[in-house]
Amino acid sequence: MAHTGVLRPGFIQLRVLDMQSAVEHYIKRIGLNRVTEGTDGRMYLKAADEFDHHSIVLRKADAPGVDLMAFKVLEDSDLDSFEKRIVEYGYPVDHVAAGEQPGIGRRIGFTIASGHRIELYAHAEQSEPKPLTHNPNIWVSEPHGMQANRFDHALLYGPKIEENLDFFTKVLDFRCAERVDTPGGLLAIWLTCGMKAHDIAFVNHAEPNKLHHVSFELENWDSIGHAADILTHFDISIDIGPTRHGITRGQTIYFFDPSGNRDEVFAGGYTYYPDNPTRTWDETQIGKGIFYYERVLNEAFLSVVT
Amino acid sequence: MAHTGVLRPGFIQLRVLDMQSAVEHYIKRIGLNRVTEGTDGRMYLKAADEFDHHSIVLRKADAPGVDLMAFKVLEDSDLDSFEKRIVEYGYPVDHVAAGEQPGIGRRIGFTIASGHRIELYAHAEQSEPKPLTHNPNIWVSEPHGMQANRFDHALLYGPKIEENLDFFTKVLDFRCAERVDTPGGLLAIWLTCGMKAHDIAFVNHAEPNKLHHVSFELENWDSIGHAADILTHFDISIDIGPTRHGITRGQTIYFFDPSGNRDEVFAGGYTYYPDNPTRTWDETQIGKGIFYYERVLNEAFLSVVT
Amino acid sequence: MAHTGVLRPGFIQLRVLDMQSAVEHYIKRIGLNRVTEGTDGRMYLKAADEFDHHSIVLRKADAPGVDLMAFKVLEDSDLDSFEKRIVEYGYPVDHVAAGEQPGIGRRIGFTIASGHRIELYAHAEQSEPKPLTHNPNIWVSEPHGMQANRFDHALLYGPKIEENLDFFTKVLDFRCAERVDTPGGLLAIWLTCGMKAHDIAFVNHAEPNKLHHVSFELENWDSIGHAADILTHFDISIDIGPTRHGITRGQTIYFFDPSGNRDEVFAGGYTYYPDNPTRTWDETQIGKGIFYYERVLNEAFLSVVT
Amino acid sequence: MAHTGVLRPGFIQLRVLDMQSAVEHYIKRIGLNRVTEGTDGRMYLKAADEFDHHSIVLRKADAPGVDLMAFKVLEDSDLDSFEKRIVEYGYPVDHVAAGEQPGIGRRIGFTIASGHRIELYAHAEQSEPKPLTHNPNIWVSEPHGMQANRFDHALLYGPKIEENLDFFTKVLDFRCAERVDTPGGLLAIWLTCGMKAHDIAFVNHAEPNKLHHVSFELENWDSIGHAADILTHFDISIDIGPTRHGITRGQTIYFFDPSGNRDEVFAGGYTYYPDNPTRTWDETQIGKGIFYYERVLNEAFLSVVT
Repeated sequence: MAHTGVLRPGFIQLRVLDMQSAVEHYIKRIGLNRVTEGTDGRMYLKAADEFDHHSIVLRKADAPGVDLMAFKVLEDSDLDSFEKRIVEYGYPVDHVAAGEQPGIGRRIGFTIASGHRIELYAHAEQSEPKPLTHNPNIWVSEPHGMQANRFDHALLYGPKIEENLDFFTKVLDFRCAERVDTPGGLLAIWLTCGMKAHDIAFVNHAEPNKLHHVSFELENWDSIGHAADILTHFDISIDIGPTRHGITRGQTIYFFDPSGNRDEVFAGGYTYYPDNPTRTWDETQIGKGIFYYERVLNEAFLSVVT
Repeated sequence: MAHTGVLRPGFIQLRVLDMQSAVEHYIKRIGLNRVTEGTDGRMYLKAADEFDHHSIVLRKADAPGVDLMAFKVLEDSDLDSFEKRIVEYGYPVDHVAAGEQPGIGRRIGFTIASGHRIELYAHAEQSEPKPLTHNPNIWVSEPHGMQANRFDHALLYGPKIEENLDFFTKVLDFRCAERVDTPGGLLAIWLTCGMKAHDIAFVNHAEPNKLHHVSFELENWDSIGHAADILTHFDISIDIGPTRHGITRGQTIYFFDPSGNRDEVFAGGYTYYPDNPTRTWDETQIGKGIFYYERVLNEAFLSVVT
Repeated sequence: MAHTGVLRPGFIQLRVLDMQSAVEHYIKRIGLNRVTEGTDGRMYLKAADEFDHHSIVLRKADAPGVDLMAFKVLEDSDLDSFEKRIVEYGYPVDHVAAGEQPGIGRRIGFTIASGHRIELYAHAEQSEPKPLTHNPNIWVSEPHGMQANRFDHALLYGPKIEENLDFFTKVLDFRCAERVDTPGGLLAIWLTCGMKAHDIAFVNHAEPNKLHHVSFELENWDSIGHAADILTHFDISIDIGPTRHGITRGQTIYFFDPSGNRDEVFAGGYTYYPDNPTRTWDETQIGKGIFYYERVLNEAFLSVVT
Repeated sequence: MAHTGVLRPGFIQLRVLDMQSAVEHYIKRIGLNRVTEGTDGRMYLKAADEFDHHSIVLRKADAPGVDLMAFKVLEDSDLDSFEKRIVEYGYPVDHVAAGEQPGIGRRIGFTIASGHRIELYAHAEQSEPKPLTHNPNIWVSEPHGMQANRFDHALLYGPKIEENLDFFTKVLDFRCAERVDTPGGLLAIWLTCGMKAHDIAFVNHAEPNKLHHVSFELENWDSIGHAADILTHFDISIDIGPTRHGITRGQTIYFFDPSGNRDEVFAGGYTYYPDNPTRTWDETQIGKGIFYYERVLNEAFLSVVT
């Protein structure tokens, strides 16, 4: 029972304006693989190093953004115990039947203080392609595009992130790896349910339920450079990078998908353990925290969300 | 409580024939930092990305090898509950008083089937140098030598590793990330208490209580190449590498410390989750599992231990 | 006229036992591009960063090996002046008409002391794909396979390499970047016509006209690691590596094409200038010179040639 | 005689406001080594992979900038033949006696159209540390700081760069690897005397004799990232990067020395041959040419010079 309860970000459902260009972007550029198309037109994708059915769901809509972010838990019984704790915390919980997304078991869902819908589920079928498990080669087939290993985390913008911090740590057993406190209050938090420096992060923002970026893990700094080469070659708009975050230490580049959702590919960062102190930042060094080399925050980072 | 119980390998106590050359090797070459020298002459070292007091203990002795490997647990009460479970499993447990090693709290110790002494402890003081936590730079001072981030794991050789597998998974809540089964029985296991592919590993071997290697994590494949350049420059004997393991996918190089203990520096490898299947290997591909590029096992890997 | 006369290795004609597997190997694995097939069945390939028509010629034959290695010179008039100097040195020169290989102008050919046929030519048409030249992206299309930038050099085995050294430096204006002298005489030479540490190299060997390896340049050590991953994935036999050469400092991996010809992909190494001293090696350190990490010469390196 | 005449940038003499902070910057941060201090207080430094006496000269002055840039030629007789050609071109030539800088032979000097002083010399003593030449290790001692391999090139700003282009190609036998032409005329040129994409470059600018940056070569993109980590750690102002140039393809980061001179460390870029076409850029893509990822030119790049 070393690692129990919430295991990791399982999937995120993104809204896109045009399905074809979105699929091309996430598959050919970021390097994901197509799993299947749902009967309602949603597209299900996964990264090369994921066993589970899918991690990215694309839904055609009139505006970009995020529908929901779902975390996988270890045991089916965790769903019941977490439901009890969430309801006790005061958030209504609803149920999504198994199969609402292909390959995914029953889910429980709820809305957090920042306005985002979060879901938990315990069961996912495995899908191809997936890592080999008997006498395995290191990959099933040659990586392509930016060679994303996995859907890693999302950064969400919304109000009341102090309550998010309280909820995620008290109810979902997350820990706070890093936080930014300013004279105006808590500005941002990086939360983890395991040994990564972040599985979900929040920035304080007036408008609820906004997506800042969805992030994919690459192998190393060389991969970040290669991603940058791809972005310019295919005329994809880069927001900032290649650079490093002081917060999490990740090496990173931000860019936009064809619908305007911000993507990140990143590599590196420290390993987090639950006995590690929370790293703290104040308003004097927030620029260096976000962009370690530039040491100033560009305005777009705080204002452009979907 | 996402990650509870046994957190990680905390420290390992190695026997060395000559203290001065050992300290130079681990500090100047591998890149560790000196913390303190004990009153009994033991030397305490740590890697750049570790908060806790120390992770490597060097003890002068007449023969090289490992005295003990200690894991840190999350809570002091874990020591009591693990003691109960260990005793119920049938292993005698003894107690080491706080302060037997500087900066380390009370420990419980026991001998596993392969003949190795394992200890658990819940408390460690922090020591300098340690990662910064307020508006932190990514390092306190420029990395040196091979730039080891942390003591990562050890591979131990001994008999009855089926029992080790049973004990670590049933009593200490580890999981088995990979295993090698041959017609002659279980040959090797890689065990994890968190999200790394291995925190401790065992290979079946007639003689008990042997050390195959102690391993330090580097940043990436470039760091492995730089480590190799250092090894040749300083005439340090390389066992094998740079190469990759099929098992864990780590990129690696093996070499020997001045006392003959085998060290590894490695980078990369997949992220493990408790719902991942165990990767399995058989005798037909064991060469590729151990050395992914050479695809054959060199005899030294199976026979040279300390 | 800073860089005049012989510019670089232009192309090499290799004998292969089976054309289809050879083409797949050099295109899909090493990452070359197909230019055209000759009317006589020879296949013409080029690397991503080459303007000229082709650099690798594959000819179906009953035995593997090298037919000829051709160097490009700057001016057509260089062919006349070099012919005069070569004849004066005592080697017969023959002429190959423009178009004997598609896209290549007239060539002069001759046999050197080690038994190899060398050719010079001044004219090559450009072919697609080639690097862009107006507002260029860094590549025309995403690199594939091992992502070879260029055909870089060859190492040839044969007798009388002292005479090769004399001929290449006196007649073709090459310089000797490195040499290995043993009690038995001159063992090996690395010769350059520009700023690379080697454009052609020779090892003393009883049998004339043998090919040790043909080499392709990759970007960096990360690319060497990726090449190694490809080799194991596609069950291609690795001779040695990833490792580094002490000689030239190149980071390298050797493997075999389906016909048994040895290939190398390498990266790095120092920049050579004509006022640099020749690096010298003796028999005590030849192992480290060839394989910097292993520090011993494997027998295959000295004996397996095609 | 494959590579004759002008070999490479030999040294550059920079003006600095404070010698101690300048020496610390170039030695501890960029990774150069101290060779000697002149009797007049000038400091002589060199990079790890250079045989010659020094490549960077620091002179204390009231304003930052460049005193002169000197190129090494192959033969002493080249000095006479170049002097003749330069005088015939219409530029006065003066003579600097051997020993004016320690370890450097006689020099000829002249002022080019953009107002910069250029010198040529044929003789330099070797100095320690220098690359080993008998059974050499790949380095004499462990690299430090940013681990610069060599002084690589400079970018200079001034008027009449069309004349510079004419002079360098007609009189000094350089070639133009890349150029930017705008409706307002020739904006910039990258000139080479060997196989590097640039040994000196010019941007059109009203004020004569200005320094844009002096550049040092690092090993690869990983080294660029490490340089960026050093810059932030030591609070050194970064101008832009890590990024890539479309022009030359180099991976790069720009920053300022304590006197305000701009430095660059870069890695990679293509190999240039004299039969390569000149890459051309126009005003529509100049942003991408300079900063391949950002794709816009920051104002500082065109205006901040010393």
